[in-house]
Amino acid sequence: MSVGLDHPKKLVIISGIRLSAGSAQIYRKKRNDIALIEISADSVTSAAFTKNHFCAAPVQISKNNLKKSKPRYCLINSGNANAGTGQSGINNSKTICKTLAKITNCDETSVLPFSTGVIGEDLPVDKINQILPSLVKNLSENSWLDVAKSIMTTDTIPKAISRQVKILDSIVSITGIAKGSGMIKPDMATMLSFVATDANITKECLDEIKDNVLKKSFNRIIVDGDTSTNDSFLLISTCKAGSLKINEQNSKEFKILNNEITNLCCELAQAIVRDGEGAKKFITIQVAEGKDTLECLSVAYQIAGSPLVKTAFTASDPNWGRIIAAIGNSKINKLDVTKINIYIDDVCLVENGERSKSYTEERGKGVMEQDEIILRINLKRGSHSEEIWTTDLSNEYIKINAEYRS
Amino acid sequence: MSVGLDHPKKLVIISGIRLSAGSAQIYRKKRNDIALIEISADSVTSAAFTKNHFCAAPVQISKNNLKKSKPRYCLINSGNANAGTGQSGINNSKTICKTLAKITNCDETSVLPFSTGVIGEDLPVDKINQILPSLVKNLSENSWLDVAKSIMTTDTIPKAISRQVKILDSIVSITGIAKGSGMIKPDMATMLSFVATDANITKECLDEIKDNVLKKSFNRIIVDGDTSTNDSFLLISTCKAGSLKINEQNSKEFKILNNEITNLCCELAQAIVRDGEGAKKFITIQVAEGKDTLECLSVAYQIAGSPLVKTAFTASDPNWGRIIAAIGNSKINKLDVTKINIYIDDVCLVENGERSKSYTEERGKGVMEQDEIILRINLKRGSHSEEIWTTDLSNEYIKINAEYRS
Repeated sequence: MSVGLDHPKKLVIISGIRLSAGSAQIYRKKRNDIALIEISADSVTSAAFTKNHFCAAPVQISKNNLKKSKPRYCLINSGNANAGTGQSGINNSKTICKTLAKITNCDETSVLPFSTGVIGEDLPVDKINQILPSLVKNLSENSWLDVAKSIMTTDTIPKAISRQVKILDSIVSITGIAKGSGMIKPDMATMLSFVATDANITKECLDEIKDNVLKKSFNRIIVDGDTSTNDSFLLISTCKAGSLKINEQNSKEFKILNNEITNLCCELAQAIVRDGEGAKKFITIQVAEGKDTLECLSVAYQIAGSPLVKTAFTASDPNWGRIIAAIGNSKINKLDVTKINIYIDDVCLVENGERSKSYTEERGKGVMEQDEIILRINLKRGSHSEEIWTTDLSNEYIKINAEYRS
Repeated sequence: MSVGLDHPKKLVIISGIRLSAGSAQIYRKKRNDIALIEISADSVTSAAFTKNHFCAAPVQISKNNLKKSKPRYCLINSGNANAGTGQSGINNSKTICKTLAKITNCDETSVLPFSTGVIGEDLPVDKINQILPSLVKNLSENSWLDVAKSIMTTDTIPKAISRQVKILDSIVSITGIAKGSGMIKPDMATMLSFVATDANITKECLDEIKDNVLKKSFNRIIVDGDTSTNDSFLLISTCKAGSLKINEQNSKEFKILNNEITNLCCELAQAIVRDGEGAKKFITIQVAEGKDTLECLSVAYQIAGSPLVKTAFTASDPNWGRIIAAIGNSKINKLDVTKINIYIDDVCLVENGERSKSYTEERGKGVMEQDEIILRINLKRGSHSEEIWTTDLSNEYIKINAEYRS
């Protein structure tokens, strides 16, 4: 089940990127579980990884390899996280990178490994090695969707989006994929995402865009507050789109590209929330008129992380008591609760810290029954606003996580 | 449902404390929902309240009254939190205090009001005022259990414990009650607890004991991570137990009393967890060999607050991958994950950051199926240890909180 999430629309190829997917039989049931992304030689890439202290083996290797070489291949498997596997996990991940490097005649440090799935089990190295020749053989510009499907774990729907934008005289294309539906919290949690553009851009500018994008997209979502050992975001630019070179962060062309990639990643991040484990509702939390970004986010995450608020959303219960209790629990200096207003869509629930005079249970219930809800908190103590996205907490979440070994 | 929780055993009266309970018909169904505790004139008291920014009206009034007068009465209602009710909530709470003060011929500031229940609805002042004369008339030393029952909300079992201890030549008695089963997190969250002793002790020493006790008991439990608007802890000493005066924090008698009250409050706090909403398991989390208390607690709360870990406990699934992901998510400087050991009871799951060689799924499953579990994390970076108590996260939690308006 997912909330307002469609199957991916037509995806645009990115010149310089070829992809393939296959089955290494990591899962018991028959499905694709391994993917390869080939990056052309002149590309630039920018990456971000989980901040969890327990970094999975592939994360440790990818971080190291990025320091040594320009990445030419991403080798991604689902079904096994290769986390909590110690030195043998590192060795296993290195072995498959080495095998791929040999087949493709590149340096082993040009291969970035990524894994997602069960923690603590050994990576089936032989099975993966066996499939690598056919993965290389099948590389194609058109396989974005196949790869998006192959990296899914508890996802119910693949996540892939394309955009095209005219920047001066060049048409720039962007295509991105992502996976993730639980263990989702700010700081790059349980998700893999690979986004590529053909824009001609410097490494410095691409790094800057990556930072900007993460702040506004993947680091603005929360499903259950858990973070994972494996999460990774890779932004690739193949630099093949015409002659326009983006090399200045204050330029108009930088801003256009930054904006387009941000919007695409927001859509991918929201797709992860819409496909959140057991999600019945897609909830946007807007915190307005705070003193700074930090306090707006503190309030937003306190609400989004509250099981009591989340179960109230599941029940379509406009239980603003739980919302004010969650707000009151946020770490803000001298919060004057008698100023706070709370709205669900256009219905004012709380005015100046108490039940709004105009509020009726009937109106509250009416908006709560929608499957897409905007919860707006007005702190009235500054001029900053922030927005995050979350889900409710349903029986299905418990069911999925009491049954699935992640 | 509760885990390993018995009906309260025989309670000991505390000379100088009289109590009564009755029904002000705050609930639709017939049950006691209001209680009165009378405190003798020479008593000393020490109190702690919720740190939630949204303090309920009774919390605001109790805090103020404690500054002005020695408390003589606690007036406690369930079924209505009188929170999020603005100035009219303050007025309502003051009105019932005033009525009680008139009947008992004491100053209005000697009455401490406490409320627990639904947020955002008006306190039924007239109903409460009407019952006050009979509450006063029925005051008795023997009504501890009646009061413990009347303050229950989603609790399934009343929580009340007594202890007697010989300190030098005096027999000192302690009796305590508590309520709470959801919205439970450190910092005095959704609970009311009233503990009285007849020990002869100074205010300064009692305050010190209160601080020590909270750190080790009510601030060491977590059910769902939410905190509430109303929570309060009151420690009363009627000073009637013989001639021994406890007035020195380094004295042997101080330590004995401190220890006894701490143990009693730990048992009450654990009772709250054992009766946690939807709880099927009672989980003790011990974090050992940390550098300081703060980092031990950071790791413990990260685990206790993880929905993924909690659902694994529900499923009796020894999913240590989720445990290491939660540990990795804690805010500790330079955590060396390759040193960490994880045990459930006597089964070692993780040794030096990876699956223990001695571990088998069968042994893990065996201990996970118990309804009382000790999860022990060994950080191997210092000499501090801390312990907290939590529950699993079951379908029943969702059911209770999607149906109950709190």
